[in-house]
Amino acid sequence: MADLNVYEVLNRKRRGAPIEAREIEQFIEQYTLGAIPDYQMSALLMAIAINGMTTEEMATLTQAMLHSGDEWHLRNEYDFIADKHSTGGVGDKVSLVLSPWVAACGIKIGMLSGRGLGHTGGTLDKLEAIPGFNARLSREDFNRCVAEAGCVISTSTEGIAPADKKIYALRDVTGTVESLPLITASIMSKKLAMGASALVLDVKTGSGAFMRKYQDSKALAQSLIAAAAGSGTRVEALITDMDRPLGIAAGNANEIIETIEVLKGNGPADVEFVTRAQAQRTLVLSGKFDDASAAAALEDALRSGRALDQARAWITAQGGDAKIVDDYSLLPQPKTTIEVKAPQSGFITFMDTYQAGMFTVDLGAGRKKADDVIDYAAGVMFDRRTGDEVRAGETIARIQLGNAKRDAAELTKRFLSFVTFGDTKPEERPLIHEHLT
Amino acid sequence: MADLNVYEVLNRKRRGAPIEAREIEQFIEQYTLGAIPDYQMSALLMAIAINGMTTEEMATLTQAMLHSGDEWHLRNEYDFIADKHSTGGVGDKVSLVLSPWVAACGIKIGMLSGRGLGHTGGTLDKLEAIPGFNARLSREDFNRCVAEAGCVISTSTEGIAPADKKIYALRDVTGTVESLPLITASIMSKKLAMGASALVLDVKTGSGAFMRKYQDSKALAQSLIAAAAGSGTRVEALITDMDRPLGIAAGNANEIIETIEVLKGNGPADVEFVTRAQAQRTLVLSGKFDDASAAAALEDALRSGRALDQARAWITAQGGDAKIVDDYSLLPQPKTTIEVKAPQSGFITFMDTYQAGMFTVDLGAGRKKADDVIDYAAGVMFDRRTGDEVRAGETIARIQLGNAKRDAAELTKRFLSFVTFGDTKPEERPLIHEHLT
Repeated sequence: MADLNVYEVLNRKRRGAPIEAREIEQFIEQYTLGAIPDYQMSALLMAIAINGMTTEEMATLTQAMLHSGDEWHLRNEYDFIADKHSTGGVGDKVSLVLSPWVAACGIKIGMLSGRGLGHTGGTLDKLEAIPGFNARLSREDFNRCVAEAGCVISTSTEGIAPADKKIYALRDVTGTVESLPLITASIMSKKLAMGASALVLDVKTGSGAFMRKYQDSKALAQSLIAAAAGSGTRVEALITDMDRPLGIAAGNANEIIETIEVLKGNGPADVEFVTRAQAQRTLVLSGKFDDASAAAALEDALRSGRALDQARAWITAQGGDAKIVDDYSLLPQPKTTIEVKAPQSGFITFMDTYQAGMFTVDLGAGRKKADDVIDYAAGVMFDRRTGDEVRAGETIARIQLGNAKRDAAELTKRFLSFVTFGDTKPEERPLIHEHLT
Repeated sequence: MADLNVYEVLNRKRRGAPIEAREIEQFIEQYTLGAIPDYQMSALLMAIAINGMTTEEMATLTQAMLHSGDEWHLRNEYDFIADKHSTGGVGDKVSLVLSPWVAACGIKIGMLSGRGLGHTGGTLDKLEAIPGFNARLSREDFNRCVAEAGCVISTSTEGIAPADKKIYALRDVTGTVESLPLITASIMSKKLAMGASALVLDVKTGSGAFMRKYQDSKALAQSLIAAAAGSGTRVEALITDMDRPLGIAAGNANEIIETIEVLKGNGPADVEFVTRAQAQRTLVLSGKFDDASAAAALEDALRSGRALDQARAWITAQGGDAKIVDDYSLLPQPKTTIEVKAPQSGFITFMDTYQAGMFTVDLGAGRKKADDVIDYAAGVMFDRRTGDEVRAGETIARIQLGNAKRDAAELTKRFLSFVTFGDTKPEERPLIHEHLT
């Protein structure tokens, strides 16, 4: 293989000219090994962030990053195993509901997930609110959980896509986080390294999404699908709404409770609806269901209580205390709850969901820096949301404090700063905007 | 002063949004001190190379880089002292001819110059072909030479624009050399740090120039002038032709001989013409001459032999052996000379002057890497140049070899590969294209 001319690659990407597959592969390989220094990689990242990449370049970059470490090829070990990924939102507990629900229909789910950083919550953080729950599984334990419970959610191991870890850390300090090809390669290198049979993507859009604008969300969804071409993992995406929090609860322990409530058939309709749609696509992708039989199977799993039983088995398989399903007092409890009252009568016309997410993080429910410690009991209950009619003085939200002592008036004021009231009911946004394959 | 948010600056430059003067200043200051790592600077350099800079940003960058080290403020020490800079070319000995010529008219010249790298020769390398010549002067010796000889050309000291040295080394390995604002800031930070009263820029254009295309050369000239706004140094530019070598000689010792020949009134007309134009602008910028009196003074200095005497005084002041002016055998002599014959009769219609420069470098007359050793005797005499009519078998060039042993047939073949012959005389290009102020 010819030697890589780093200087020439950087020059070409600066001018917006194409770079060859071989060059991308060698660049990533040598950077991962430490043979290419950070200052050359950061120059390449900035050139990519500004000049973009062709679909082919992006797919090659994704492949090169996934080849930098372990490849699990799960689809070779199982008849069918599905993965699911969300671009992140506020109150997004879809993965938690979906996993046992789909497993209860006989379809296996395996996910390597991340912790929360910034305004969105992290699936693993929520699971770790359950006493004893172990999210750091070895490859063997991962397989054991699939065998015992039909589903598993674990943290990504060190061995998966080390190039992504190194590149992500560099992007974080060089102003190159916002880049469609780099975001795509980062997400998909990890997903494709696990190598599920199918992957359902939940791409959020709206004020609480990573991509606020619809066109950006759609471009991301298309980019993620394109990057998987030829990988052996079938990928579909649903663009779902994140212009208001999903469900009532945002936090960790409170989202576990809401997850269980949905599985008991008592959850907020939006969470159930959005999860059901993704679960249905997962069943159909297995080839064992069509849309009608998938819908029927999901309905039956929920109404019969089998989905809830599967959640108990799953929690137990990952070392957690399944008694929380029937006794929420076993979960971390808030020490104080502050009720936020509506300052006027009328409709909630808008809630800046990014601000709502950052508010929740600031209570201790999430991380602003990677080493922040999570306060599992902290969170917010959005009792009234965008589109709801409220009366002045009515409780519209409950702020749950864990260990932190905070000023109630100040928190209430800040909460109300991101909520807009008006006289007319705002136009309703669909919960599911589009299905892309 | 507010803390610099490096991440935010990088993000903004990535999006093509403006960055503030304070941010540019702090970025350069902290990078020079080592507080900002290479990987953040290389990301900024790439963003600048792609998205450009406003004139104001570029001028601020130039100022920040010049403030990173010593500032000589020469214009405060002298009634008037001029600087001259060339963007580089093949056979470009204009600085060597101009300095004693202008000094002979009573106008002081002070230059901090560079060594050659790549296809263009270096003024200091040429001077160091003179036995004993010392181009590494202290600030005190620099002033002494001005006092003794009215002119001086020295290497830039370590203290001048250290930010530029550090940034240039990084650009060299991150594909960010080709960038108008970065080129401008690099050149002008060093020039303005010396702080002459006036600076005449010789911006070359054509196949042997740093910028081959006229529009790029003009943009560079305009950019260099704009970067000096408000600096206290008056800057003008002449765009001169470098589509063929300047003069007959390209090398080091042979260019010193050609310089002396011009000062004796026997030099190639193009060298004398281009130098005279720049010398005249220098005299006029002093405020002591108008165009007519400047032209008369230059003519008198040349014809009277005072310019040549000034060259003797200058060489002596910088420790060189002034006897070389009258005895060229005291200069390094080529051991072998290979005559290149015209393979056909007709006109030389084009000579790729970049290739001619690289050919000269390969003989040992220049550097491909910074630590290459110069062979002062090596070079090329372009006896026939673009536009000249030649007869088949006539000598069109002499390749001068110093210490290297080389195959004559191979060198001849390579030489002819960058020369084009034809039946009709090519259109003549002006030697001076434009004067910009």
